[in-house]
Amino acid sequence: MSPLKVVHVGLGPIGLAIAEAVAGSTSVVSVAAVDPLLSGRDLGELLGGPATGVTVTAELDEALAGRQTDVALHCTGSQLARVEDQLHALIGRGLSVVSTCEELSWPWFHHPDEAQRLDTAAKAAGVRLLGTGVNPGFVMDLLPVVLSGVAARVDSVVVHRVVDASTRRLPLQAKVGAGSSEAEFRERAARGALGHMGLVESVAMIAAGLGWGVDEIHQALDPVLADAPIRGAAIAVEAGQVRGLHQVATGSIGGQRKITLDLVMALGAESPGDTVVLEGVPPLEARVAGGIHGDIATVAAVVKALPRIGRVRPGLLSVLDLPAAAARSESEI
Amino acid sequence: MSPLKVVHVGLGPIGLAIAEAVAGSTSVVSVAAVDPLLSGRDLGELLGGPATGVTVTAELDEALAGRQTDVALHCTGSQLARVEDQLHALIGRGLSVVSTCEELSWPWFHHPDEAQRLDTAAKAAGVRLLGTGVNPGFVMDLLPVVLSGVAARVDSVVVHRVVDASTRRLPLQAKVGAGSSEAEFRERAARGALGHMGLVESVAMIAAGLGWGVDEIHQALDPVLADAPIRGAAIAVEAGQVRGLHQVATGSIGGQRKITLDLVMALGAESPGDTVVLEGVPPLEARVAGGIHGDIATVAAVVKALPRIGRVRPGLLSVLDLPAAAARSESEI
Repeated sequence: MSPLKVVHVGLGPIGLAIAEAVAGSTSVVSVAAVDPLLSGRDLGELLGGPATGVTVTAELDEALAGRQTDVALHCTGSQLARVEDQLHALIGRGLSVVSTCEELSWPWFHHPDEAQRLDTAAKAAGVRLLGTGVNPGFVMDLLPVVLSGVAARVDSVVVHRVVDASTRRLPLQAKVGAGSSEAEFRERAARGALGHMGLVESVAMIAAGLGWGVDEIHQALDPVLADAPIRGAAIAVEAGQVRGLHQVATGSIGGQRKITLDLVMALGAESPGDTVVLEGVPPLEARVAGGIHGDIATVAAVVKALPRIGRVRPGLLSVLDLPAAAARSESEI
Repeated sequence: MSPLKVVHVGLGPIGLAIAEAVAGSTSVVSVAAVDPLLSGRDLGELLGGPATGVTVTAELDEALAGRQTDVALHCTGSQLARVEDQLHALIGRGLSVVSTCEELSWPWFHHPDEAQRLDTAAKAAGVRLLGTGVNPGFVMDLLPVVLSGVAARVDSVVVHRVVDASTRRLPLQAKVGAGSSEAEFRERAARGALGHMGLVESVAMIAAGLGWGVDEIHQALDPVLADAPIRGAAIAVEAGQVRGLHQVATGSIGGQRKITLDLVMALGAESPGDTVVLEGVPPLEARVAGGIHGDIATVAAVVKALPRIGRVRPGLLSVLDLPAAAARSESEI
C-alpha cells in the first residue's frame, strides 16, 4: 500500500512533533506544510535533519499546488470558532482532516451549528474530519467509554487526571498559570486566556458514549497556590503564587451529577496519574500511575488515527467512531 | 428504534446471565431460545421471573419458526471445531451472531480455515459474526491495543491477570483444577480438559492490533499448589493439592518475545487485578485493582456489542473492528 500523503497545517510544538513522528513512519509521508511563521523553511531542517524538499508555505493553496495529498494534520488552535474557516478550506480541497483542535473532539453539544456545517461539508466532499489527542480524545473520555464496555451498569463516571507540569514544556507551564498571582490567574481565567481546553467536550463525549442525555454541563477553574517556593521548573514560583490549575467539569441529568472530570495541572503536583472510576455493577477503577504523557500521547493519537479514519463513513467523526485497530481483522496477521 | 430481536443459543450459566441482561434492556428483546437440556421450559421462568411465552426448544428451526429474529447470542462452547456447524446454521438463516466461543475471538491465526469459511458465509449472507467476552475480548487483548493508541512506540506488551477463583462460580473453580492432585492436573491439562481458553487467541489479536507479524505463539500451563488447606470456597483444597492454574502465552517475532500474557486463576490468589504494561515510548502501565469481574463483564461485553456490530461491514469480525460507542457521533446526545 502506498504511504498516506499528508499536509501539515500549523507547525507549533505539537505540529512539529507530529511532523517528526510522520518522518519516522513508513505508512505516512509529509508532502506539504503550511505555517505563516515558518514560511520558506525546509520541513526536514526544522526537524533538525537534512533538507527534504518540503518547503513550508504561508498559504494552503501554495502548499498543495501540484501535489496529491490525502489528509491534513491540523494543529493551529483550540477554539472551533477560530479554526472553522481553516477546516472548511481543507475539506473544500478534498482533504480529510485530523486535528488537535480541542473543541473539535466533541463539537455536537457546545458547538452544534459548527458541527452541523462541518459534517455537511465533509459528507459532501466524501472526506473525514476528526479531532483527537490525549485529552480530549483519550484519557478523560475514550478510556472511560471503552472501560464501560465491560460494565453491566454504569451509574456515574469520575476521572481524575493529575499532571506534574514541572515535567512539561514551558508553554504548558504558562498555560496552567504558574508564576502568576491569584488575582492575575482569576482575571485571565475569566477571559478564557488560561485553562485546559476540551474538558467540557470530554463530558459531552462520555455522555454520548454511555447513551446518557446529559442536560447540564458545568465547569469550574481555580488556581493551585504554592505553599513554598518552587525552583527547577522553567518558571520559578514564590510561596503564595499560583503553581497550577484545578479544573473540574461535570455533567448532570435532571440535577443529578453523573460525570465528574477532575484535572490538576500544577508544578510539583503530587501523585501524578490518571484514574478512571466507574460506579455501578461491577464497580471498576483503572489507574495509570504517573499518568499518560500529554504531548507524546497527543502526537501518537493523531498519527494512529490516520489509518483508521478511512474505515468509518465520511463526515464529522469522533474517536468513539474509530475501530481499535488500523487493519481489518483478516487472515493475515 | 424497534428493539433488536435475539435468539439465545445455549443457556448455560453465561447464556442465562446474558438472557437476564437482555430481559433488563429496552433496546434488545428475547424472542426465542435453544438448548436441548432445557427444552420446553419458559425462558422467563428459567430466569426466576414470570413466564414470558418464550419457550426453549431443542432445535434451532423450531425456535425460529414464524419469528423475525436479528441476532443469535451463542454460548455453547469454547472450541471452534465443536461449534462451527452451529455458527454456519445461524449464518445460513440470515442471523448475525455474537458468541462467547473463545476461539472465535481471533480465529485467523490458529484456525485460518474455519475463519475463512465463516467469513465467506457471513459475507454471502450479509451478516456479522463476532466472538467476545471479558477474556478473550477485552482485558488481555482489546485493552492493551486501545492503550497502544497513545504510545509513540510499543516494544513489548505484558498483561498480568490474577483472579481469585474463590469469588467465582463452581464450574470456574473446577475449570482451574482446584482440589485435584498435581498429577491429575497435568493429565487433564495434557488432554485439554482444563485451563483457560482463548489466551493464544489474545496474543494473536494483540499482534494484529499492533501490526506485528508474530511468527510463534507458545503456551504453558502449570498448577498452583496450596501451601495450607483452603476452606470456604465451593471446593475444599488440602495442602499440596492444586488450588488453581498459572497459564502463560507468549508471542515472538524472529525468536524475540514481544507479547506475554500471564494468567493466574486460583483459590486465594493474592493481589487479584489486571495489569497492562506497554514497554516503549512512553512506557505505560495501567492497573485495574481487584480485576475486572469475569462473568459480569462477559455478559456486558456480549450485550454491548449488539448495537455496535451493525456499524461494521458484514463478515467475520473481531472486537478490534468495533467502534467504542453504539451510536454514531451526531448532534443529539
